[in-house]
Amino acid sequence: MHKFDLSLMFVTDDRIQDDLVFSNILTAALKGGASIIQLREKQRDTLSFYQRALRTKALCASYHIPLIINDRLDIALAVDADGVHIGQKDMPAGVARKLLGDNKIIGLSVSNAQQAAEANVLEVDYIGISPIFATGTKQDDLEPPLGLKGLRAIRDIYQNPITSIGGVHQGNVAEVIQNGSDGVAVISAISKADNPEQATQQLKTIICQTGLNK
Amino acid sequence: MHKFDLSLMFVTDDRIQDDLVFSNILTAALKGGASIIQLREKQRDTLSFYQRALRTKALCASYHIPLIINDRLDIALAVDADGVHIGQKDMPAGVARKLLGDNKIIGLSVSNAQQAAEANVLEVDYIGISPIFATGTKQDDLEPPLGLKGLRAIRDIYQNPITSIGGVHQGNVAEVIQNGSDGVAVISAISKADNPEQATQQLKTIICQTGLNK
Repeated sequence: MHKFDLSLMFVTDDRIQDDLVFSNILTAALKGGASIIQLREKQRDTLSFYQRALRTKALCASYHIPLIINDRLDIALAVDADGVHIGQKDMPAGVARKLLGDNKIIGLSVSNAQQAAEANVLEVDYIGISPIFATGTKQDDLEPPLGLKGLRAIRDIYQNPITSIGGVHQGNVAEVIQNGSDGVAVISAISKADNPEQATQQLKTIICQTGLNK
Repeated sequence: MHKFDLSLMFVTDDRIQDDLVFSNILTAALKGGASIIQLREKQRDTLSFYQRALRTKALCASYHIPLIINDRLDIALAVDADGVHIGQKDMPAGVARKLLGDNKIIGLSVSNAQQAAEANVLEVDYIGISPIFATGTKQDDLEPPLGLKGLRAIRDIYQNPITSIGGVHQGNVAEVIQNGSDGVAVISAISKADNPEQATQQLKTIICQTGLNK
């Protein structure tokens, strides 16, 4: 298990096709204080995913912020990303660990207490509770939101860091941290903000202050 | 460059969801004389692609026939496949070679003479002319068929083995071999045959006889 800052993960928005707009939002998130970036592309062919990953890696590296890739180990290996975030329908965690080696970050989405218990014995570095609240960003086959009660139950079960994703914004991020999440992951709260850099800063400030007072 | 038999590639049919039906057709192709198998899945999530790849690898290994994976290097690495087949919108060949190492097969789809010329300087083991004839199997964004004239032009350009895919069947396979292809790759000619094993045998016989008389 190696150290990384899970406090504020920006998950990139695959609805944004334009590369310049994409890079501008990513840069804003990096400047605003995102502590880790997850590149998530569900629609692209492998070549354009790889090309976007190369650009994303270069930007993240210039801010010394780790980059993880959603699902695709081939992309992660190709750009030497810092790790992957896998879902329950992605590569099994043990296979991912074998392919990536011990020095990479592996995160796993969990949607219920049983998956959280299973994650305790997997070689993953953190879990992402998904979804914590209702969200419009990820359209396909999401599980029901776990809510703060579900988060607390999983906090009692899972021994390593937890982040939470789904409908998190400035108005509810404090209670997510207060109820046991080590950080949050957001897409729209940054990508759809009028000012993505300021939105990132504000989220980061709330997370830090709430964490200090826990 | 390592040796493998490109004479008859069976490309698996991702329209076939049922695992038993899928395995039965694959077994028939292996029994019938397919010389190399390409697992092609364009719709599945990573986990079910991986699980199908594991089963496919085991079957191919029991017949001592190499298995290559379409597009997905992560799946190829995860099941220790014998290589990959990549398209022009997949991972760049140089990146694929770096990730797979020198001992794996890499094939590349080409759709015109320029791509064939470019392939001469890439670290790929063969090219697949796609499509040689019109086909109904692959729906999305195929280039215009190259035909036998296009095949001959590419044969004059490209120095390594060539296979051809797209609308190949018992009635036209001989002329594909006669016009410079080292082998053919088929989906429907085997997967949609009334008797896939017999269809494979018949294709293999024509290919071998035509090759002997070249």
